[in-house]
Amino acid sequence: MTQEIEKQKINNKTTLVLKFGGSSVADQECIERISKIAIKEATQHNVVIVVSAMGKTTNGLVDMANKISPNVRGRELDMLLATGELVSISLCAMCIERMGHPAISLTGWQAGFITESSHNKARIAEIKTEKIKKNLEANKIVVIAGFQGITEDGEVTTLGRGGSDTSAVAIAAALNAERCDIYTDVDGIYTTDPRIEKKASKLECISHEEMLELASLGAKVLHPRSVELAKKYDVDLRVRSSFAPDTQGTKVISLKRIKDMELTKAVTGVALDENQAWIGMMNVPDTPGIVSKIFTALSDKNISVDMIIQSVPVDGINDVAFTVPKDDLKPALAICTELQTEMKGIKIVSDSNVAKVSIVGAGMINRSGIASKLFQILSTENINIQMIATSEIKISCVIDPKDSHKAVQAIHKAFELDLSSEPILA
Amino acid sequence: MTQEIEKQKINNKTTLVLKFGGSSVADQECIERISKIAIKEATQHNVVIVVSAMGKTTNGLVDMANKISPNVRGRELDMLLATGELVSISLCAMCIERMGHPAISLTGWQAGFITESSHNKARIAEIKTEKIKKNLEANKIVVIAGFQGITEDGEVTTLGRGGSDTSAVAIAAALNAERCDIYTDVDGIYTTDPRIEKKASKLECISHEEMLELASLGAKVLHPRSVELAKKYDVDLRVRSSFAPDTQGTKVISLKRIKDMELTKAVTGVALDENQAWIGMMNVPDTPGIVSKIFTALSDKNISVDMIIQSVPVDGINDVAFTVPKDDLKPALAICTELQTEMKGIKIVSDSNVAKVSIVGAGMINRSGIASKLFQILSTENINIQMIATSEIKISCVIDPKDSHKAVQAIHKAFELDLSSEPILA
Repeated sequence: MTQEIEKQKINNKTTLVLKFGGSSVADQECIERISKIAIKEATQHNVVIVVSAMGKTTNGLVDMANKISPNVRGRELDMLLATGELVSISLCAMCIERMGHPAISLTGWQAGFITESSHNKARIAEIKTEKIKKNLEANKIVVIAGFQGITEDGEVTTLGRGGSDTSAVAIAAALNAERCDIYTDVDGIYTTDPRIEKKASKLECISHEEMLELASLGAKVLHPRSVELAKKYDVDLRVRSSFAPDTQGTKVISLKRIKDMELTKAVTGVALDENQAWIGMMNVPDTPGIVSKIFTALSDKNISVDMIIQSVPVDGINDVAFTVPKDDLKPALAICTELQTEMKGIKIVSDSNVAKVSIVGAGMINRSGIASKLFQILSTENINIQMIATSEIKISCVIDPKDSHKAVQAIHKAFELDLSSEPILA
Repeated sequence: MTQEIEKQKINNKTTLVLKFGGSSVADQECIERISKIAIKEATQHNVVIVVSAMGKTTNGLVDMANKISPNVRGRELDMLLATGELVSISLCAMCIERMGHPAISLTGWQAGFITESSHNKARIAEIKTEKIKKNLEANKIVVIAGFQGITEDGEVTTLGRGGSDTSAVAIAAALNAERCDIYTDVDGIYTTDPRIEKKASKLECISHEEMLELASLGAKVLHPRSVELAKKYDVDLRVRSSFAPDTQGTKVISLKRIKDMELTKAVTGVALDENQAWIGMMNVPDTPGIVSKIFTALSDKNISVDMIIQSVPVDGINDVAFTVPKDDLKPALAICTELQTEMKGIKIVSDSNVAKVSIVGAGMINRSGIASKLFQILSTENINIQMIATSEIKISCVIDPKDSHKAVQAIHKAFELDLSSEPILA
């Protein structure tokens, strides 16, 4: 077992951070539900709540802004969007107080969230926790507006996508909290998408690293950015449902602790991404800097490339292939065509509609034969593999979308994921 | 003529403060309308806009709070209510920028509104204008959230009723502005309620003092609290319509300047308040402290007393009569009955339904015969006067509500108020 750093205590209790998304604070009933959860946790812990805007409020504000000034960005959009969370925090604090427990709401700036000065997707630079701690010492449940902060100059900023999750994990790290519970409308992370495989089972525990690789299974539940932060500061997360608070949800903890348990399975989950396209560039000269030139050009246009495959050069030329989100295929092809005029002889091929199926598992690291087993399963199902990419804990194959559900189901069965509901970590 | 204090200039221009109420920022079209007004004024002045929450937003927030926690007050209510203005300021700033003029929105705390620490009806203690001035120097239209401020401890406060008007006047005073224009959905202050007297005419100019006495004519347009502040700091106001920005509206300026013009009419306007009841306490001992005891008890229960009449004592006893808002009659009577048990012999009478008709005019100060003319008019109309109270610039009579419209029409005609549309101040 690894030695754990002792958690900070206030009033002789450790602290829990509870994050509630928009669907968990959508109306009066929801707010009452989460207030009860907070008050219950407060019997044993100091409790900090981080909340999002109610329901679809943020989308509504964006629509309003776009009517006034199409595609507005920057400072004023942040001023507008930051109001959504302010409504939720005050209503939550009122509700908790009415139910009999002292509470206080804090805006991003009151809670001490100092961010860098870029608007709309600011990163947290520092959390000045004095005010939070003072209120926890006074036995109050502290309700903090997620998604927002303030620059050193007093300008309101928002954190962009996944902002509230990130706020919650950051505050858990800053307070050296016992745990950060991400409450949402699903009860945990599953071995695969239950809409594709009915036997998908809820994971008891998963590592930060696996969670990141399984983004497509969990991105709507837990934003990768917050998982990155949790990994960096070793924050234990728990994904759970505010509609079923008595179920345990899924723990997301450090890979090191998962490995120490020696209870890891070879494969934790199967992810499917049907929003992929690929581009192949053939006959690329095997010269230093050429490949970098391609990907720098794509990055400059904010096109995020996923899988990148380059085979061994033959006769001083090379083939490079990569996947991009479907919507980015057109601009990506435009960039490649531009490069083609500079580097004569390059041939460009593409497929606008492919699927990527991935298996993820911390257990792969110490086990051999996982990749060959995966290829065998697909072969048995007569599914052709177009591209392969691997990382330490993930193997991805690009296949025809018509085969994607069949692939997920076959892999899920072969790796016995429908049995994974057995506890793998107490 | 009085000597005027020179107005402060920034970028060699004086500053205008424009205040827009909820109905002036109710939707996209309204926001575009007021943005145009601001940009037009910005060609000749530095422009600061103070806005309220959109339409009925604040009422909606109060309803939401009451569902969660009935009759909630204090800190969390302020946190919630302050969000309404934050939506308006950012949308207004976006709109002005989209129309081509630089703009910046500032929350109450960013704009430097420091208040005392009482919630829900905080008074402004100080405005730290550095940030506003810096942005005016940068040629930006500064859009400020009305109705809100912050305590020295960083707690969000709201200013209570009339808060946005008060914010606007306070900032005009702090910036030594040229003028504060209160934009609303009516085009000025009238000699009387046009629904009662069709010949009511718009006043070109009125003194702060008269405006205060005519509260019932203007309270929905301009809160008395903001007029008090304007009077204290000698801020020129102009009440005008955001729906007809080319009309001049009504100027509200210092009584001293009005008098210096020697253009004051005897009577400026006729006000009617039909929401009155009266209580008479007969046979009150003429002993020091007794009357004070009555009104202290009423004040302790937050009952605002309007007219107070006490006649000359006869045989060591006195009659005291006063008016209260209809809704407060029951609790006021309860207090009086309680005092009755202490002071035997007192007799209490009341009328739950009376009307108060008032004439107001700065010109009364130097003219005699105004009161007698008023009584004559009412007598000719066969209207009985139940109570009379006078101040330097106002005479009020309590009458039967059935006669109230007839009284207003007769007074309006007799004092030639339907002719007051002639300019009385250039």
